[in-house]
Amino acid sequence: MSGAMTERHMLGEDEAAPLAGLAARVRALTEAAVLTGVGADEARAVADEIAALTERLRAVRRDAPPFLVTDGHRMDRQGGNPVTGVLNPIAPPVDLDVTADGIVRAEFTLSDVYEGPPSYVHGGMSAMVLDQALGMAAAQTGVGGMTATLELRYRRPTPLGVPLTVEAKASRVEGRKIYASGTIAGPDGRVTVEATAMFVTPQHFLVHER
Amino acid sequence: MSGAMTERHMLGEDEAAPLAGLAARVRALTEAAVLTGVGADEARAVADEIAALTERLRAVRRDAPPFLVTDGHRMDRQGGNPVTGVLNPIAPPVDLDVTADGIVRAEFTLSDVYEGPPSYVHGGMSAMVLDQALGMAAAQTGVGGMTATLELRYRRPTPLGVPLTVEAKASRVEGRKIYASGTIAGPDGRVTVEATAMFVTPQHFLVHER
Repeated sequence: MSGAMTERHMLGEDEAAPLAGLAARVRALTEAAVLTGVGADEARAVADEIAALTERLRAVRRDAPPFLVTDGHRMDRQGGNPVTGVLNPIAPPVDLDVTADGIVRAEFTLSDVYEGPPSYVHGGMSAMVLDQALGMAAAQTGVGGMTATLELRYRRPTPLGVPLTVEAKASRVEGRKIYASGTIAGPDGRVTVEATAMFVTPQHFLVHER
Repeated sequence: MSGAMTERHMLGEDEAAPLAGLAARVRALTEAAVLTGVGADEARAVADEIAALTERLRAVRRDAPPFLVTDGHRMDRQGGNPVTGVLNPIAPPVDLDVTADGIVRAEFTLSDVYEGPPSYVHGGMSAMVLDQALGMAAAQTGVGGMTATLELRYRRPTPLGVPLTVEAKASRVEGRKIYASGTIAGPDGRVTVEATAMFVTPQHFLVHER
């Protein structure tokens, strides 16, 4: 298990690339596993081979997911982030960009792995993407913080398998509180989910960063 | 991509068991991939083998994740659900139980795969677990529905790698609107995240179920 005090491995681009490739392959395997219709014997045979590969990866085990060396901001460098992390197979990953005026934005597509209601994105997955985007927008105002409140309004179902857009922006800062809002929209541009959030900068963030 | 109109494969226990075993192996592989410190050559070699296994699973591909034949309610049977689904490698999975008085409850542990702030659960992941638990609590009042609003209050960080408890209960029903609330608590019993939600039963749910 990771710890706040755990020293993180910092990976340069050359070190990160093969691990990102590995994560991409596990991501594709995950989708194949959710949709496969192979018989019981083949499922068991593949499962056994996966177990052997897992042991090979465990031969050298880190205490916590590594960070990436980037010239960007703190959230970008979290390679294992479950929304944006290129090293995490459960992340779509959502590749969040920041514009000059502090708007956080990404286009992304969610596979059947993220299904909630039949043919639609799980409401919790939309919450997860928005929490991450709003958190990154909050971080544009300074050091960022941890989610204190998150409010979501689901206006219509969010479809799977088509290009979606997430956008977020910080609206104001009051001491250690940072407010942000954002949306997910479908390919027709219509908003499917709206979010507002308040983030609080922990005292130790301020100590570390200054 | 799945479609609302896609005929779902319904898996009995014998058919589901090997696929659940496969998903469990992919889940372990995912955690190993996030934490591995193997070198570039070994990471690439394992990645190639994973790609070959993915092709084997794709040899027979379903249009959408299958459902499970159970004697329970509708959410239980969604084998591919990203929170509770035993067939989905990205699901922890959280094994939600329902008590006689309609309280939905589970104990679960989240690995480093779900890390947000260093050593803590990603705020969006807590939202995802709560959306699922509150949705299942709402379903106990009748046919359930889709999330319309979800409000989360993060009271303290939620730790990784230790037993957590999620609890949810429907509070009232007004026409097609169902209100529910719930919490996640740490091993010391202290609440880390609180949630309230409103679910709306779509008209076609009522038509289908009656």
